[in-house]
Amino acid sequence: MSNEIGTVLRLTTFGESHGEAMGGVIDGFPARVAVDLERLQEQVSRRRPGQSAVTTQRSEQDRVEILSGIKDGMTLGTPIGFIVRNTDHRSEDYDEMAHVYRPSHADYTYEARYGIRDHRGGGRASARETVSRVVAGALAAQLLERHGVRVVAYSSQIGDVKVEEDYGRLNLNEVYNSDVRCPDGGAAHRMRVAIEQARTERDTLGGIVTCVVTGLPAGVGDPVFGKLQARLAAAMMSIPAAKGFDYGLGFGFADRRGSEVIDEFVMRDGRVRTLTNYSGGLQGGITNGEDLVMRVCFKPIATMPREVRTVDAGGNETVLTTRGRHDVCAVPRAVPVVEAMAALIVLDAMLVAGKIIIE
Amino acid sequence: MSNEIGTVLRLTTFGESHGEAMGGVIDGFPARVAVDLERLQEQVSRRRPGQSAVTTQRSEQDRVEILSGIKDGMTLGTPIGFIVRNTDHRSEDYDEMAHVYRPSHADYTYEARYGIRDHRGGGRASARETVSRVVAGALAAQLLERHGVRVVAYSSQIGDVKVEEDYGRLNLNEVYNSDVRCPDGGAAHRMRVAIEQARTERDTLGGIVTCVVTGLPAGVGDPVFGKLQARLAAAMMSIPAAKGFDYGLGFGFADRRGSEVIDEFVMRDGRVRTLTNYSGGLQGGITNGEDLVMRVCFKPIATMPREVRTVDAGGNETVLTTRGRHDVCAVPRAVPVVEAMAALIVLDAMLVAGKIIIE
Amino acid sequence: MSNEIGTVLRLTTFGESHGEAMGGVIDGFPARVAVDLERLQEQVSRRRPGQSAVTTQRSEQDRVEILSGIKDGMTLGTPIGFIVRNTDHRSEDYDEMAHVYRPSHADYTYEARYGIRDHRGGGRASARETVSRVVAGALAAQLLERHGVRVVAYSSQIGDVKVEEDYGRLNLNEVYNSDVRCPDGGAAHRMRVAIEQARTERDTLGGIVTCVVTGLPAGVGDPVFGKLQARLAAAMMSIPAAKGFDYGLGFGFADRRGSEVIDEFVMRDGRVRTLTNYSGGLQGGITNGEDLVMRVCFKPIATMPREVRTVDAGGNETVLTTRGRHDVCAVPRAVPVVEAMAALIVLDAMLVAGKIIIE
Amino acid sequence: MSNEIGTVLRLTTFGESHGEAMGGVIDGFPARVAVDLERLQEQVSRRRPGQSAVTTQRSEQDRVEILSGIKDGMTLGTPIGFIVRNTDHRSEDYDEMAHVYRPSHADYTYEARYGIRDHRGGGRASARETVSRVVAGALAAQLLERHGVRVVAYSSQIGDVKVEEDYGRLNLNEVYNSDVRCPDGGAAHRMRVAIEQARTERDTLGGIVTCVVTGLPAGVGDPVFGKLQARLAAAMMSIPAAKGFDYGLGFGFADRRGSEVIDEFVMRDGRVRTLTNYSGGLQGGITNGEDLVMRVCFKPIATMPREVRTVDAGGNETVLTTRGRHDVCAVPRAVPVVEAMAALIVLDAMLVAGKIIIE
Repeated sequence: MSNEIGTVLRLTTFGESHGEAMGGVIDGFPARVAVDLERLQEQVSRRRPGQSAVTTQRSEQDRVEILSGIKDGMTLGTPIGFIVRNTDHRSEDYDEMAHVYRPSHADYTYEARYGIRDHRGGGRASARETVSRVVAGALAAQLLERHGVRVVAYSSQIGDVKVEEDYGRLNLNEVYNSDVRCPDGGAAHRMRVAIEQARTERDTLGGIVTCVVTGLPAGVGDPVFGKLQARLAAAMMSIPAAKGFDYGLGFGFADRRGSEVIDEFVMRDGRVRTLTNYSGGLQGGITNGEDLVMRVCFKPIATMPREVRTVDAGGNETVLTTRGRHDVCAVPRAVPVVEAMAALIVLDAMLVAGKIIIE
Repeated sequence: MSNEIGTVLRLTTFGESHGEAMGGVIDGFPARVAVDLERLQEQVSRRRPGQSAVTTQRSEQDRVEILSGIKDGMTLGTPIGFIVRNTDHRSEDYDEMAHVYRPSHADYTYEARYGIRDHRGGGRASARETVSRVVAGALAAQLLERHGVRVVAYSSQIGDVKVEEDYGRLNLNEVYNSDVRCPDGGAAHRMRVAIEQARTERDTLGGIVTCVVTGLPAGVGDPVFGKLQARLAAAMMSIPAAKGFDYGLGFGFADRRGSEVIDEFVMRDGRVRTLTNYSGGLQGGITNGEDLVMRVCFKPIATMPREVRTVDAGGNETVLTTRGRHDVCAVPRAVPVVEAMAALIVLDAMLVAGKIIIE
Repeated sequence: MSNEIGTVLRLTTFGESHGEAMGGVIDGFPARVAVDLERLQEQVSRRRPGQSAVTTQRSEQDRVEILSGIKDGMTLGTPIGFIVRNTDHRSEDYDEMAHVYRPSHADYTYEARYGIRDHRGGGRASARETVSRVVAGALAAQLLERHGVRVVAYSSQIGDVKVEEDYGRLNLNEVYNSDVRCPDGGAAHRMRVAIEQARTERDTLGGIVTCVVTGLPAGVGDPVFGKLQARLAAAMMSIPAAKGFDYGLGFGFADRRGSEVIDEFVMRDGRVRTLTNYSGGLQGGITNGEDLVMRVCFKPIATMPREVRTVDAGGNETVLTTRGRHDVCAVPRAVPVVEAMAALIVLDAMLVAGKIIIE
Repeated sequence: MSNEIGTVLRLTTFGESHGEAMGGVIDGFPARVAVDLERLQEQVSRRRPGQSAVTTQRSEQDRVEILSGIKDGMTLGTPIGFIVRNTDHRSEDYDEMAHVYRPSHADYTYEARYGIRDHRGGGRASARETVSRVVAGALAAQLLERHGVRVVAYSSQIGDVKVEEDYGRLNLNEVYNSDVRCPDGGAAHRMRVAIEQARTERDTLGGIVTCVVTGLPAGVGDPVFGKLQARLAAAMMSIPAAKGFDYGLGFGFADRRGSEVIDEFVMRDGRVRTLTNYSGGLQGGITNGEDLVMRVCFKPIATMPREVRTVDAGGNETVLTTRGRHDVCAVPRAVPVVEAMAALIVLDAMLVAGKIIIE
C-alpha cells in the first residue's frame, strides 16, 4: 500500500533506480480528457538530471512511454499505465555500497525493514523514483488547467539565500527559465553562486520550495483526517529529502497574536473573500477560494565527496568516500516534483468534492 | 473516507461538537492485549477543557464508554467501538453563528463544501472532535509501552516563549504536572504569564508542540508514499489549527551545510547507531532506531472577544463579536492530541512492519 | 479493515452479540438528504427476531440511536454514527460454549484466528451483527428511492419449497406482509409448513433469497476488480450463513448454449434495451439499464436441539446439546439484510459513477 | 480504485486488449522470496490463446517482462512492476465494432459509463486483461507452495458434461495435461466432443471451474466484511464472464436439512478436524484447516459466428455478424485465472493473519 497515493485519483508507482524501468499506474483519471503528450514529456524533462551546471551529469533520457488509458490523445477512463526506462546505469559506481551503509541515506533502514535492498543508487529510495510522480502530476496539471487551476512551485530558499519578495510580486512564468528554478533574478543569481561555492567546498545545500495553487473554487477538501493540508503534507513529506511542511503563515504563526493574523471576510465582486490570506487558502481542511500556499523544506544532499564515518553490513566501523555523480542541492530538481504532488492531491480533492465534471 | 486514518490499525471517528455524542471505531487492534481503562479515561481527561485557569470553562465530563472489542479488560481482535456523550451543550450561545461566518474558522468552507453545516460550536470542525483521537491513541500507547515504545509531547513554544533546552535535558514525566504541558519550569511560568496577558488584552496565542518517540526498533515505516514522516505529517496536519509539521532538524535544514548535519554511523553496544540525530530517527521513511522527534505548529485561536469584520450567509458584510467560552491558546490542550496521533501512526507502522507480535 | 465496506460510501461496524451495543459509522453519505427516521426504525425492526412464530423469541427492541451526521432530519455530509443497544442478554445460556466449539459455527476458527473470542452467542460472528448493516442500508435505500431506484428482496426458496414464478409476476410490495418474506402466497404457505415440520423434527432449513434492483440507469459500476457483481458478491457473501451468489441466469448459464442466452439489443422508447435479461442487468461489471437480479443461498442454521459431536478447547472430543433460542431457518430474517447490502453497494456505485447529484 | 485488488498484498492492473501492453504492479509482496521466473512464464502461457484446437488462434507470445521488485531471482519487498506487450493486434477486425454494440458484451455499458471506449477487442473489458492476474497469481502461488499451500482449479463442467467424481478422487496434477483443463479423462473427452459440436453449430458453451486450496492452516480470513469467502467471491466475480460463485456445498445447501450437513468436530492426529467438509473449509469467514473448495460459473461466450440483433451508437437497430477469432468456451482458459485469483486472495489473507513469516 505504501507505493500508492490518492483517494479516487490514485497513483501507484514502481521501479528501482538502477532496475529496468520506473513506472506507474494512474487509476481514476476522468475519461475524455484531451492530453498533450509533448507537454507531458517536457515537464518530465524538467525533473531530469544533466540539464545544467547546477545539477548532476547523469544523462537519462527519461522518455515516457504511455502503455494504456490514452488513445488518440484522449483519456479512456481506464488506468493509465506508463514506464520510463532506466538507460544510464553505471551500477559499478555503487559496488562499494553493497556492503557499506551511507550515512543519512536509507541503506541501513531498508536493510532493517526488508533484510535485503537494491544497493545500486539507492534502489527504491532514490530520487529517481520521483520521475513517476512527475508523469502523473503533469497529466493532473493539464486537467486542472482546463478548470482554471494552476500549480506553480519555485525555489524560495537555497542555503542562506532567500527570496524576500512575496510570491504575488514574482513572475511565476519565469520559474523554468531559471536553472535554479527561482523567478527572482537577483536571488537566482545568489543561489547559483552559493551552489558553486558549496561545490568547490565539496559540500551540499538545503533549501525551501514554495508552491502556490491559484484558481481554486471554495469547497475543495474534506474534514478531519482528509483535510487538504493533511493530504498535501503527506504527499510532500513523501518526497525524498523533505523534512518540513507548512502552509499559509505556517511556523510563522507560533509567535503571532490571534488579532494580527485573523483573515477577516469581505464581499468582493459578489464573492466571499478574505482581506488577508494568512490561512493559505484553507479553513478546516477545505479551500476558501483564496490562493493555496505552502512550503516544503529539503535537507542538504547527504552524499558529498568527503570522507564520512560509517559502518558496514558486518557491523564494522569504516570510512566511506563517495564517488558517483551527485547534485549539490536537491531544491531545483524538487520543484517539478512538488508541483506534481500538489497537482495530484488537488485534482483528487476536486474529484472527491465533485468540482470537476467532464461534460 | 475522510473520517478514517490508518493502514492496518484504522480509526474511524464521528460526532459533531453539539450533537449527541462523539465516538469512533478502532479496527485492526491486536487481540489479547490487556488494557487499563482507568488510565485510558485519565488520558482522555487530560484533553478535556475546564481543567485549569489556562483553559476554557466548558465542563464536559468526557466519560468514555467502550461498546465492543474489549471484554474483561482484554482486547478481542474485533473492532473497538466507543462513544463520549456531549453533555454540556448551551447551543444557544451559538445562535448568531447560524447565519454569520466566523473568520478563520471553517463555517464558510463547510458551507461551500456541503451546502449545510451544524453551526453549533463548529460542528464536526470543532476541536472537540479530537476526543475520539485521544481515546484511540491512549489504547495504542498502552500497547506501544509494552513493547518499550513511549510517546511524549510537550508545549515547546507558546507565543514568543520558547523552551531552549533540548528534550533530552527535560524531565518528560513532568509534562502533565504542568497546566501548560511544559516540563521546563521556567518556560512554563513564562508561558502562563504570556497566556494571562493575552487574555487580558482579549487576544490569543499560537505555539509549537514537540513530540518524541523513544524505544523504536529500526525498520519501522515504509518506502515512497508510506514514509513514516508522511503518515505522521498527515496525522498531525489533520489536527484542528495545525499549520506546520517538521521532524529532526526540520526547517532548520534549509540553511545548513550537508557536512554539518550528516548523521554518521558508529557501532555502540553491538548496535548500529548515529553520532548525531539531525534526521530525527528516520531515513527514507523508515526508523533507524534513534529517537523520532517532530514538531507541530498551531495557529492562535481565531475566536477572541473582539469585533471582527465578516460576512453573513446572505452575502452581507457585518461585524461579529464572539461570545461563548474559548481558550486563549490551543497548545496545552493539543499536547495529548499530538501524542495520540503519534501513537496511532507509530503502532500502525509497527503492525505493518511485523514488529509487534502478540505472543 | 475487515469491518468496513464500500468505496466512497463506507460503512464500518462494531459490536459483539452480547456486548454493550452494536453500531456503525457511515462515511461519505451525501449532505442535505432528508431522511425519515421512523421508516429507518421500521426497516430495522423487520430484521429483528421475535416477530412471529417462524423466528426466534429473543426480544431485542433494536432501537436505533443516531449519534451524529443527521440534524433536524437532514444529513450533514459528516459521518453518521449510530448504535443499537443489546438489551436481552441471557448470556448464561452460553456458558457451556465458553469451552466447547459448536460445529459449523465460527467458535473454533475465531479461536484459531485471534486466540480469544467472546463466546456469548457467537460474539462478532453472530447474525446480530447484521443489524448495523440494516441501519445503513435503510438510509441508502431512502436516497436511492428519491432517484427512482428500488431494492426488493424475498425468500425464493426455503428447504425444497421454491417460488416458481418469475419475480416480474410477483407483487413485491407484499414481501413484508408475509412472515416468511415471500410474496407468493402459495409458496409462502408451503414454506411455513416446511419450517414448522423441520422444527418438530428438531431440524433446520436453508434456502435462497432473490434480490431485484429496479430503476437503475445504465453506466453504474466499474471495470475489472470493481465490477458491480464483484462488489455485490463480496457484500452478500459477507452475510453470516451465505454460501453462494449468482446474478442473472447465474449457475443456470453452465449448460446453456450461447445462442439461447444472448441478450440482443433493441430500441424501445428511444432507449437502448435488451430483448431478454439473462445477464441480470450487468455487462462487464456495469449496469445496462435493465433490472439487476441476483440470488444468495443460505445454509441451514447449524444450531439445532440435537446432540452433535464436537471437541472442546482442551482438545477433547465431546457431545454438545444446544440450548438457547434459535431460528429454524435464517432465510426470512436474511431478506432485509440482503436488501441492505444491495442498497449500500448500489448507492456507492452510483456515487462513484457520479450518477447521484444532490441538487 | 477499480483496477486494484487486495488488502496488504495488492495488485493494480492496466492495459487495453489492443493497446501497447497489459501490465500490473504487485505491492506488498514479501521481501527475500526466491522466485522462479521460468515457472512464472509457463503459468502465464497456460492462459494464452492459440494453444490447441479447443481455444482461439490469436497467437500472442505473452512474454512477461519484470521491471522492478525482483533482483537476481529474489524479491526486494518493493513493488513488482511488470508488462506483457500486445503483439498481434489485427485491430482492423474490429472496425465494425467502433459503431455497433455487441450484445451481451460491455460495449454499450462502457459507453454509458465513460462516454468513450477502446472498441478494439473489448479494450479493458477483454479477457486479455486477465493475463496480468495470472502473472501476479503465479508469483503468489510460488510463495504459498513454500508454505505448503497449493491452489488447483479444473473444468468441472462444460456445457452439459459434468465431472461426477469428487475432487478427492481426481489426480489434480493432470489438469494442465488436458487441453480442456479437466483431470477426469472420460469427462475431458466428452467436453472436447461437446466443444467441437458447438463449434460446428456455430454456438458456444458455458461451464463451471472448481478450485481447491489444500494445506491451509486454521485461522486465515477475517470476520464480517473481510470474510475469506467474500474476498474470494469478489475476486472470482471480477473475472470476465463469471456469473456465479459458491463454496463448500454452495447452492446445494438450499434444500438440505441442517442435521445432514453439519460438519461435526473430531480430534485426528492431535488436530481439530471435521468429519465432513460441507462448509468448504471456512466458518465465519475464517479457515478451519480443511480444504477450501469453491466453484465459479462462466456463461457461454457471447461472440459467435451468427447474426444477432443489436443497435448502433446512433440509436439505430441493426444486425451484427461477428468476425474475428473467438473461443467456443471460456472455461479451459479461465482455469489458470481462477487459480491466480485464489492464490492472490489466499496469500493476502495469510499475510493479514500473520501466517506467513519470511524467516
